[in-house]
Amino acid sequence: MVTLKDARRIIAAAEKKAEEIGQPMNIAVADSGGNLVSHVRMDGAWIGSIDISIKKAYTSRAFDISTKDLAEHSQSGGQFFGIHASNGGQIMIFAGGIPLMQDGEVVGAIGVSGGSGEQDHAVAEAGADAF
Amino acid sequence: MVTLKDARRIIAAAEKKAEEIGQPMNIAVADSGGNLVSHVRMDGAWIGSIDISIKKAYTSRAFDISTKDLAEHSQSGGQFFGIHASNGGQIMIFAGGIPLMQDGEVVGAIGVSGGSGEQDHAVAEAGADAF
Amino acid sequence: MVTLKDARRIIAAAEKKAEEIGQPMNIAVADSGGNLVSHVRMDGAWIGSIDISIKKAYTSRAFDISTKDLAEHSQSGGQFFGIHASNGGQIMIFAGGIPLMQDGEVVGAIGVSGGSGEQDHAVAEAGADAF
Amino acid sequence: MVTLKDARRIIAAAEKKAEEIGQPMNIAVADSGGNLVSHVRMDGAWIGSIDISIKKAYTSRAFDISTKDLAEHSQSGGQFFGIHASNGGQIMIFAGGIPLMQDGEVVGAIGVSGGSGEQDHAVAEAGADAF
Repeated sequence: MVTLKDARRIIAAAEKKAEEIGQPMNIAVADSGGNLVSHVRMDGAWIGSIDISIKKAYTSRAFDISTKDLAEHSQSGGQFFGIHASNGGQIMIFAGGIPLMQDGEVVGAIGVSGGSGEQDHAVAEAGADAF
Repeated sequence: MVTLKDARRIIAAAEKKAEEIGQPMNIAVADSGGNLVSHVRMDGAWIGSIDISIKKAYTSRAFDISTKDLAEHSQSGGQFFGIHASNGGQIMIFAGGIPLMQDGEVVGAIGVSGGSGEQDHAVAEAGADAF
Repeated sequence: MVTLKDARRIIAAAEKKAEEIGQPMNIAVADSGGNLVSHVRMDGAWIGSIDISIKKAYTSRAFDISTKDLAEHSQSGGQFFGIHASNGGQIMIFAGGIPLMQDGEVVGAIGVSGGSGEQDHAVAEAGADAF
Repeated sequence: MVTLKDARRIIAAAEKKAEEIGQPMNIAVADSGGNLVSHVRMDGAWIGSIDISIKKAYTSRAFDISTKDLAEHSQSGGQFFGIHASNGGQIMIFAGGIPLMQDGEVVGAIGVSGGSGEQDHAVAEAGADAF
């Protein structure tokens, strides 16, 4: 279970990482139902990334996979190409979403957006590690 | 301007009020462009209210009015009836959204959802007062 | 036919009226196909009214009627109640949209949003009169 | 801040360029919140480009980047592939959107649509230069 307290700890760790690499981010945490627990937009982070961070968290929980890994199968020619058109436009297929694990089970996810794919993934990892 | 630090202070005050009245809430803060700065869902709050809280904040900034006041003009027979069909479904016409004022100007808004209209409005007021 | 030059003359007249009554407005002009020719948001006008002004213009041309008149039939109990759910959410059923007439035919429409229904209609009328 | 007066100056410069190259265009200007300030469709410009011009302006502000540059990362195999499915379909990933800069900060954007990608970008540049 991901409580609001958990989400805040996860977000704090992600923010710290974002500050270290000097890139303001949108950070979102979703629960086991894929529903948003909390979101923050750091000052100066892209407004187009609000939606993306929330959807990366949803996507990671929806398929119990990092969006970085999902991306590999979702390019033109891949086995899941077109998956981004499902679920009412909630599926994001580029790096920044990572499942949150508890006792070997996915119980939620973090989604990060605001920099390069590599930066987003690194910040999401810092958040997930704090869980 | 509404910074993330501002949003956190506003949300903390709203959470405190929600705890006092014993009703877990979704609380969202938007900036002057109507874009989300931060959102929290208190443990046990309705998942259907995530979206509503974010949209109440948007609506309050979009029309520089509390959603409680907007509601009065948006019923069947009122001068704004049908306004909820505008802006891609982002307009909420019931209590819980309140503009955030700075130097006599609206610079953002808070949106609260999770209880009765009266409760939502009271929690939003507590948040707005902390700005 | 409504040219861009026409739209600018219509908008200028509407802006003048809006300034007279001291209420900044969103003003939109659509052509015979219901498609947008031009839009302006006066400084300080509501951001939620951008979409509404464009949709009032569309609606007025779509049914060759002022949205003020359409409103009368679109309230709960009226013969067109529910029409706002049609056309992908583009139908606005409150005052501020007025058809543009040429040789007894509707060739476009103006849509205004930013004040009370009465103000919106008055500003739209000033614009339509300039055509 | 992008005022309506600014938007008109930007649009006038873009129109002039569009006339020079002989291609009628849709031109849109958005503010720092990504919200539309003004739009014009030059006589004869594509009606399908109304929406695209407005969304290119939104996109450029949403990610503080030209849509021409965003396009490079958004093709199949790129780090942002799939970004066009975010933000409710508002993201355009082909040339024609350019951020508007003030004191080194992005405060809005221009979006142009109506010709080839190269033409759209050139017209947008002429508009942005007038800011």
